[in-house]
Parts: sequence; structure tokens; C-alpha cells
Amino acid sequence: MKRGFLVILSGPSGAGKNTVLDATMDRCSDLQYSVSATTRPRRKSEQDGVDYFFLTEEEFQRRVRAGEFLEWAEFCGHSYGTPLAYIEECLEQGHVVVMDIDIEGARQVKDKMPEAVFVFLLPPTMAELENRLRGRSTDSDEAIRQRLGKALEELKAGIDYDYVILNDKIAKSAAKLEAIITAERCRVKHSEYFELLEDIVGRNRE
Amino acid sequence: MKRGFLVILSGPSGAGKNTVLDATMDRCSDLQYSVSATTRPRRKSEQDGVDYFFLTEEEFQRRVRAGEFLEWAEFCGHSYGTPLAYIEECLEQGHVVVMDIDIEGARQVKDKMPEAVFVFLLPPTMAELENRLRGRSTDSDEAIRQRLGKALEELKAGIDYDYVILNDKIAKSAAKLEAIITAERCRVKHSEYFELLEDIVGRNRE
Repeated sequence: MKRGFLVILSGPSGAGKNTVLDATMDRCSDLQYSVSATTRPRRKSEQDGVDYFFLTEEEFQRRVRAGEFLEWAEFCGHSYGTPLAYIEECLEQGHVVVMDIDIEGARQVKDKMPEAVFVFLLPPTMAELENRLRGRSTDSDEAIRQRLGKALEELKAGIDYDYVILNDKIAKSAAKLEAIITAERCRVKHSEYFELLEDIVGRNRE
Repeated sequence: MKRGFLVILSGPSGAGKNTVLDATMDRCSDLQYSVSATTRPRRKSEQDGVDYFFLTEEEFQRRVRAGEFLEWAEFCGHSYGTPLAYIEECLEQGHVVVMDIDIEGARQVKDKMPEAVFVFLLPPTMAELENRLRGRSTDSDEAIRQRLGKALEELKAGIDYDYVILNDKIAKSAAKLEAIITAERCRVKHSEYFELLEDIVGRNRE
């Protein structure tokens, strides 16, 4: 079985990561959504191993110390993380695994799994931001920077990603993400023909 | 205007490069097909600069010596080549330029324009080839190699390409090539947002 690959959809808050990923999964039934581990209590409607892997705070922290998370973070007093062994297993089974995650989480993934596919989603307001940055020459650089400081700080991570999508229409963004995944399946290194080509190169080298 | 990029569709003879590229161009009206220069006489139906750039043998050879072709070759006593300045101009105008070309031509392009996108098309018979290579354990490696020598020699170039498509169905292959082009338009370095992101990184660096 050809190993799958991991697709990270990240970007500033308000970019619409979750909505775009949901729309993409509706279009592509063969994507595997990454299940997170969490210390927050299980709700009645939730299934362990399906919605989340539910862990005690103690077990979660043990795993953090053991480096068993691909990335992790705290939100509202609870811990959330992506189990590395679980992702590895999905990839070994040949799945294309998708995750939507904030910029800091994506940075952690890049450290542990630099070969993942990183897609940066720009918020719909980016066009407006662009106009402000480029158009209004009456504003000094200093004034622009102060007003947009936080947004710029978040956006600057985008330069190190593989792909960038401006999320002006959800369906359009989902179609682009689908195309990126289709293209990545055709990448020589991801392709089911990679081993065969390697084999052929090896034979000819003899 | 954001600079475009060049997409090379190559592969062994009989892979169906021309058919797949035609089908892809039918789907995507915004692709620019690369016009070749040639020394063969112009037919009545053909327009200079549209079907080909028609050159004298003398002028063609002068351009070869001056390094003015991205790639060139001889077929049936005539010379054919891709003018570098023409491709540069199309790219500067922001076009996605597509070419179908044989493996040796693609090798020349890789030398002169390594940043182009290289797509390797595997012939429909590849599945059969794969069976022969992997399945028939009664054949010795030597016997396989002798029988498939030429095919293997051609296929081995594929390992250095960016993408690989098995051309089992033309429409499917064209859809994959279209997805690759859509994805490449979203590549950070090809994206219209690249300069903006660079600009933001620069501002934050001050």
C-alpha cells in the first residue's frame, strides 16, 4: 500500500478554515479527517475515537512530555492535540489525512512532519487588507503597520506554506483545495508509480 | 502582473501527450499553447506566429548557436524548436504556458528553465508493463529487461518529474492535468499574493 500524505489547512482566525474543509470533504469522500485527543469531558453525543480521543489531563501531559503529539495546544482550560502514532497509522494505510489548525499548530506540524502539504487560507478581508496596504499612499508605513499589526503578524507565516487560497467564496476555495489534493496525489513521490519508477531506475543502473 | 509559469507534459511515445493536452485545453480556455518555430514549409492553411514561427534553415541554425531555443530537435529532415524569448514574453504577461514534448525535449527545458512544472504521462500499457515487471516471477530480471529495454529506458526519466499521470482514460487524465494547473496557480510562489506576503514579511522584519 502506497503511503498517504497529510494536508494541513491553516491561516489566520476568521479565514474560514473549518467551513472550507467541511465543504471539501463533502466533495471528496476519500479524505480522512484527523481525530484529535482532548482532555475536555465527553458529551453524550460523542464517541471516543470518532469525535475525539478522550484523555485525562494526566495522560495528556504524559504524552506531551513523551513527544507523542504532532501538535497540541490549550483552549479554554482544556488541552487538545493530534496523536502522532494515529496519524502515522492513517498514512501507512494509504489515507490522505486532512486537518484544519491554527498557525501555531501548523508550525508544530512543520517541525515534526515537514513533508506534509501546507495550505494557507487567506480571509475574505484580505482583498480589503491588500487595498489598504497597496492603495492608500496617504498612509505612512507606520500608520498601516499599527492598524494592521496583528493581521500582518499572522499573515507573514503564509510565505513558508506550499499553497495559498484566498477564501472569497467557500465553494471556490473548496474546489481549489480539492485540486491541490488531486495534484498532490499525482506528485511523483506520492504516486503509486513511484516505487515502480524507482525500481526501473535501479534496474537500469545495474 | 504576476508572472505565469510553464507546464511541460512529456512521457514515452504512445503515452497520448497530444490528446491529453488537447482535452485539457478544451476544459481550460485560459491556457496558452506554446507556438514552435520550424524550418518546414508553411502549408496554405497555416499562419506564421499562430501555427508555427516559420524560419529558414539558416536563421534556425543561427538561433540554435545563439542559444535562443528553450529546446529544439530534428524530425523527418526539418528542425523544430521553442523560442525562449517568446516563452519569456508569455510568462511575463502572466500566462500559464503549456507544451507537450518528448522526453529529450523536456530534458532540455529542465536545463534552461528548471522552475517549470514537469508532468510525466505514462502510457495506458503501463499497467501491463507493471504486471510484467512485478507479477511474472517465472521471468528472470534479464529476460524482462531485454524485452522491455527501450520502454524502461524511457520511463526512467519520470522519477525526476514533479507529477505523474497514468493515461488510462483521456478525460480522467485531462481532469488530473487541470487539477495540477489549478494547484500550481495556488502555489505560494506562483500566487498573486506572493509579493504581498513577501511585502508583509519585509515590513515585519524592519
